[in-house]
Amino acid sequence: MATPAVRVGLLGCGNVGSALVHLLVDDAERIATRTGLRLELAAVAVRSQSRERDAPIPAGVITTDAHAVVADDSVDVVVEVIGGIEPARTLILTALQAGKPVVTANKELLANFGAELFEAASAAGVDLLFESAVAGGIPLIRPLRESLAGERIRRIMGIVNGTTNFILTRMSEDGTGYHDALAEAQSLGYAERDPTADVEGFDAAAKAAILANVAFGARVVAGDVYREGISGVTAADIATARQLGYAVKLLAIVDHAVGNGTPDEPESIAVRVHPAMVPLTHPLAAVRDSFNAVFVEGDSVGELMFLGRGAGGRPTASAVLGDLLDAVHNLTTGGAGRSVTSRPVAIRPIDDLRSAYYFPLVVADRPGVLHAVSGVLGHNRVSVRLMEQVSTPADPEDGPVHGEAAGPRPLARIMFVTHPAYERDVQACLHDLRGLDVVERVGGLLRVVGP
Amino acid sequence: MATPAVRVGLLGCGNVGSALVHLLVDDAERIATRTGLRLELAAVAVRSQSRERDAPIPAGVITTDAHAVVADDSVDVVVEVIGGIEPARTLILTALQAGKPVVTANKELLANFGAELFEAASAAGVDLLFESAVAGGIPLIRPLRESLAGERIRRIMGIVNGTTNFILTRMSEDGTGYHDALAEAQSLGYAERDPTADVEGFDAAAKAAILANVAFGARVVAGDVYREGISGVTAADIATARQLGYAVKLLAIVDHAVGNGTPDEPESIAVRVHPAMVPLTHPLAAVRDSFNAVFVEGDSVGELMFLGRGAGGRPTASAVLGDLLDAVHNLTTGGAGRSVTSRPVAIRPIDDLRSAYYFPLVVADRPGVLHAVSGVLGHNRVSVRLMEQVSTPADPEDGPVHGEAAGPRPLARIMFVTHPAYERDVQACLHDLRGLDVVERVGGLLRVVGP
Repeated sequence: MATPAVRVGLLGCGNVGSALVHLLVDDAERIATRTGLRLELAAVAVRSQSRERDAPIPAGVITTDAHAVVADDSVDVVVEVIGGIEPARTLILTALQAGKPVVTANKELLANFGAELFEAASAAGVDLLFESAVAGGIPLIRPLRESLAGERIRRIMGIVNGTTNFILTRMSEDGTGYHDALAEAQSLGYAERDPTADVEGFDAAAKAAILANVAFGARVVAGDVYREGISGVTAADIATARQLGYAVKLLAIVDHAVGNGTPDEPESIAVRVHPAMVPLTHPLAAVRDSFNAVFVEGDSVGELMFLGRGAGGRPTASAVLGDLLDAVHNLTTGGAGRSVTSRPVAIRPIDDLRSAYYFPLVVADRPGVLHAVSGVLGHNRVSVRLMEQVSTPADPEDGPVHGEAAGPRPLARIMFVTHPAYERDVQACLHDLRGLDVVERVGGLLRVVGP
Repeated sequence: MATPAVRVGLLGCGNVGSALVHLLVDDAERIATRTGLRLELAAVAVRSQSRERDAPIPAGVITTDAHAVVADDSVDVVVEVIGGIEPARTLILTALQAGKPVVTANKELLANFGAELFEAASAAGVDLLFESAVAGGIPLIRPLRESLAGERIRRIMGIVNGTTNFILTRMSEDGTGYHDALAEAQSLGYAERDPTADVEGFDAAAKAAILANVAFGARVVAGDVYREGISGVTAADIATARQLGYAVKLLAIVDHAVGNGTPDEPESIAVRVHPAMVPLTHPLAAVRDSFNAVFVEGDSVGELMFLGRGAGGRPTASAVLGDLLDAVHNLTTGGAGRSVTSRPVAIRPIDDLRSAYYFPLVVADRPGVLHAVSGVLGHNRVSVRLMEQVSTPADPEDGPVHGEAAGPRPLARIMFVTHPAYERDVQACLHDLRGLDVVERVGGLLRVVGP
């Protein structure tokens, strides 16, 4: 094939970078045959040349000077898989300003400096592609930007963190406790030694911010996202949810309202990450193990779901390669990709959320308790759909309760499912419940996703 | 917005066309704001002007002369939603040759004359887009052509017919018989009065042929696809499958083998549509009602699934609009979409399939029967993994059996699940079983999809 090769500058060569090098080198012939495009690895910037890498990096292309790669006139397109804010941000901006298309997998950067990067790409008239930054290998960003460009999307709900989905699956299917399931995820390499970013929802919140930008053009950064993790969810909660017909999933949810164009009811967006109860008949409920899936609700298209591997070197590299081929296609045909434009949009606080809620209480096992509890609920305008005394004694995962040291005290575990209520009312209710003498503990809140 | 409007010629104004007119007219402002593109409905070609339509067609654009629309120099892009082979084929070829991008939802045409159309588009250097032809509103064709352009895909398995999935869901969840479930689908408008195209798998086979072209560049037409429908599946089979840990789904399956480049083992493809047993833990098993879903297995990306509405005016129009915006984006930026190139590839016959199989037998209930049956199985190299006498008397859905008129004869129903075997051996086995005196009937064969 006589097509001139397009020269790729790769910044970073960890798991994803190494997998990409394998694809570019080992599969060069197949890719050229299928797409008519020939990609040449011009430079690979790494932090340390001495580190051993499982990647067939061609001789002479490895360097520790990432800035030189970006500045190199013979590099046509840049792939950034370093991660983190700096130097990735400066490198990408420099590349874009030099007219080079950029492919990045950097969710942290996009979730915090997305608007700046999108504007730089738009001003330079070149592609900034980031399919791999959300939900790894799943084609999601391109469908949202292109296939659904004309669709009025109302809501996006995603299982966008594979680690927490693995933990919740183990807890649900095997009754494993949270700490044991986390340890299993760590031993399998799904979870980091410090699992905070995953289990407390920071990773999912960054992805939610990116989705808000892509699907709704809303300028949302990671810090705007309401966030709760899964560390407060117990196997008992999950078992109870299942009896009620629900699975428990950590969801990133983006809700968009067009408003009516007046200052009283402006366009607005709500972006949140928290464990949620999903009806067992909902497609998200069947997403198991470390799979990711993103559910989209649109006016015309109805309900869509995209499922696949959200992490891992090879799936992520597959998405990077798809972007790279897209950028190169545009480069060689003189076309231009779609730019992402984002604008400030009112962000609705979690207090305004209206949802059904599940929460368990550990209470003293004596007459009159339900009367006291129901008084607090009614006072806070929270109406109960379902109340059940789940088990007694309390689940061991609830840990020691105060008062236990003073000798055994009979306890009961009661769980409530409410009718739809406002978050502010439910939070006030939980606050008041914690103040009741008969309430030993208020368990983790689960918001119920409507059928 | 000062962008000049792009003039759209719409051929056909049934369900999909009407829904598209609604989107183009009612949502023009929103689409222009979001995409920067302004689309104007220049002409709408219909068969009869007198028919009532639920669509806000602008005055003066309706016509019965589709050929004039395609020939009109002021029409920039053509949307074909007439369906069928002619005149759609001639109209699309004429439009492409005139340099107009074409968006079509026509699966029948693409499944039979795809290569001709793809070549015409490629020769003219214009887009031929057809997202809506497979799996309706689900973004699938664009992800396969673009996001996964560099991916080595091994297999595609899809629930691509919503009518049959609805019927199978009713049979599975409510134990409804096939005929009652079909009647329910008809009363809800999911199934035609003559349901043959859906229930016998013709619709799914056309979509399988298109997927083989798009994902593998393999020149496959509808007639190349091995095809069985669901009319032989009983509620009893489905209940038995569930007890064994499987759901029953009508699947379109495309398997690709690269071969080793020698004539002994050439690149080859196997394309088939038939009811299959899918493990309950597989994402396809959870796809309910009239939803479609397509599962993709790739070397790097692993497993992906795309789920959504496979039919209906509005979901299909959503996909058409996405294509239209893509074509117009390319038209206005001077870019070009990816062309589909297909080449002849060896098509493996169903006889070469190796799979596990399920089949029920209705047999005389007397000693020695299993001995006779197992002799036939062994003789044909079919090894049994599981044998169970499911129920007696036979399921009423099995209908009257021969011999019944002569008075009641004790019958038993036995089901078998085999170890992996060759299709040719299983078919020979079933042929021999039908010839046994003790076998009253051989039920429908279900192929088991591996975990």
